[in-house]
Amino acid sequence: MNVLVLGGDGFCGWPTALHLSAGGHDVTIVDNFARRSADVELGAESLTPIRPLEERLDAWTALGGRAIGFRRIDVAKAYEALEAALRELAPDAIVHFAEQRAAPYSMKSPRHKRYTVDNNINATNNLLCAMVEAAPDAHLVHLGTMGVYGYGKAKGLRIPEGYVDATLRADGREASVEIVYPPDPGSIYHMTKTQDALLFAFYAKNDGLRITDLHQGVVWGTLTPETVADERLINRFDYDGDYGTVLNRFLMQAAIGHPLTIHGTGGQTRAFIHIRDTVRCIELAALSGPARGKRVRILNQMTETHRVRDLARMVSDMTGVPVRTMENPRKEAAENDLQVANDGLVRLGLKPTRLSEGLMGEVIDVARRYANRCDTAKVVATSRW
Amino acid sequence: MNVLVLGGDGFCGWPTALHLSAGGHDVTIVDNFARRSADVELGAESLTPIRPLEERLDAWTALGGRAIGFRRIDVAKAYEALEAALRELAPDAIVHFAEQRAAPYSMKSPRHKRYTVDNNINATNNLLCAMVEAAPDAHLVHLGTMGVYGYGKAKGLRIPEGYVDATLRADGREASVEIVYPPDPGSIYHMTKTQDALLFAFYAKNDGLRITDLHQGVVWGTLTPETVADERLINRFDYDGDYGTVLNRFLMQAAIGHPLTIHGTGGQTRAFIHIRDTVRCIELAALSGPARGKRVRILNQMTETHRVRDLARMVSDMTGVPVRTMENPRKEAAENDLQVANDGLVRLGLKPTRLSEGLMGEVIDVARRYANRCDTAKVVATSRW
Repeated sequence: MNVLVLGGDGFCGWPTALHLSAGGHDVTIVDNFARRSADVELGAESLTPIRPLEERLDAWTALGGRAIGFRRIDVAKAYEALEAALRELAPDAIVHFAEQRAAPYSMKSPRHKRYTVDNNINATNNLLCAMVEAAPDAHLVHLGTMGVYGYGKAKGLRIPEGYVDATLRADGREASVEIVYPPDPGSIYHMTKTQDALLFAFYAKNDGLRITDLHQGVVWGTLTPETVADERLINRFDYDGDYGTVLNRFLMQAAIGHPLTIHGTGGQTRAFIHIRDTVRCIELAALSGPARGKRVRILNQMTETHRVRDLARMVSDMTGVPVRTMENPRKEAAENDLQVANDGLVRLGLKPTRLSEGLMGEVIDVARRYANRCDTAKVVATSRW
Repeated sequence: MNVLVLGGDGFCGWPTALHLSAGGHDVTIVDNFARRSADVELGAESLTPIRPLEERLDAWTALGGRAIGFRRIDVAKAYEALEAALRELAPDAIVHFAEQRAAPYSMKSPRHKRYTVDNNINATNNLLCAMVEAAPDAHLVHLGTMGVYGYGKAKGLRIPEGYVDATLRADGREASVEIVYPPDPGSIYHMTKTQDALLFAFYAKNDGLRITDLHQGVVWGTLTPETVADERLINRFDYDGDYGTVLNRFLMQAAIGHPLTIHGTGGQTRAFIHIRDTVRCIELAALSGPARGKRVRILNQMTETHRVRDLARMVSDMTGVPVRTMENPRKEAAENDLQVANDGLVRLGLKPTRLSEGLMGEVIDVARRYANRCDTAKVVATSRW
């Protein structure tokens, strides 16, 4: 498979590019280094010492890996370059990570809200436009988020994979239809993913594009079999209040003896997936796209759900580091239940990696190894909404 | 009421600004003349000789009208100027017409698709961001479209005003919720209005903004009581295949003896509203906004539904001009039924103007008066999708 990985220098993108390359696929990364620029803006850095992309790519080849190509393109702005790249590279699949992916970052200020909407929506629309013109048979694999579903809209229901049967009622009449599960995003970032879904539905219907939208849970972990081969291949590890994800933040906090910071009661239940499973899911999805003219395929990319305070308790029990409750800086339900269908990826061959498999210790080890790089001032979340 | 009219130089915006001014409100127009630029790009012109905005405004004051302010701001690009204007003018209501509003234009090429998405989504998001910062109590009145509902999703149902009761079913369990009527847009333009709806829902929920979304039918007519007072106040009249709306195009074609061009069987049923009612609806809506913290109010701004071939027949019977069937350049259902609830605006005081009231003749008269300005090469629609 000839694959483009847009955003292939990021936290999920980089290990995905390596995994696909290791799997025998021809990979080209497209990136504009927006994530590294956000590090500079926030004065925060990956805990792990990630190398410049060129060095990463050279190391991969030096270790015997299949050469991975690179194009520096701003997908949201440089439409002509993107269209030309699609025409030239003729990808079978395009993995689309080229979006601003942090909810707290998206809510920091008008500038951050506006950047997130402008970047994410134009990136997706540019890509779809360019596919219609230059790669109409390619399969688009997009990274969405479980957050599009919201946490409490349809109480008692197990969240389906995108679509749900519905009976609509108005003026005493009713109609039965299949609909997209009603979106209920909790931040501007999540909102952009619900706007993406409308773009996908339109281009699938109007132009017959082949699209898979992966609604991913909260990613944890940092290592994959490929990134551990050499320190120059190391993946990023975010622990700051904007880009760090909740379980990785707990594990990092434990590693440096910082109290585990729970927002509110910690009663938020969320879906999780280990980064090892993320990269496998993407390959499984990319290899099995829908046919042209079919509706968008939506899969839930997660392996288990947990209540945030239960995770904190687990990490606290492992490490002896105490839990600290803080006022919740976000507008969200204090407590929610969450059950999620993930049959699609399991059917495609995913063997879920569980929290119980001991990988939490691996993350703590990584965090301890690089603890001297930690800026403790960045640990507490400051973006409020 | 102190009102900003964004896009106040356009086909709906200009008569709305005059109507609000005549009603004793303080009006400021914000516009970037994008619609006049599109005329230049397309080599098409309003059939009526519209004057530069400054001349329009001077004429209105000279005739004794309340002075209307003007700020040249690109709402999609000049965020700081927009925020400053909101802070300075402290509007009670903001009417948002500042979007690219033609489906055929939005589908002409990748550039047009990209412009429509970029302009419409950033305009709306900039406005909402700026309201949070500078005008959190103002009431936003947005011009949406009946096209967000699609034409055939939930057969047999009368289209409700935005929301519908639904029973969702998955894995043998069910949940009853109120949802936004499932969107099914037929063009990139219509798709942007469904993306706007997600922005509105988010900012209403997160920031308590007061928002009304008016899903408008196809507008016909060109004159309002204010625009006929002086030729310098004349409203635009679009007859070209991109910006002309179906009934106005039939009336214009009849005026110049051009066959009435039906796409496909003409079995498309659409909702309609006269421009006189548009301007009244907007005042009624603006004066009656939802309270802070309430959900977005959605109203259907239309007065009657008609099948396109029936309209063509009516115009043909009036004028003797024959109907000509052409291949449909659009992807849409050949035939559809359409019933729409419009109770909200009627309850607020709208007295619908009907086709049967003889105003079709008025449009033909206007078209005949300016027939010498018509470029017949622009009459047939060329944008295909």
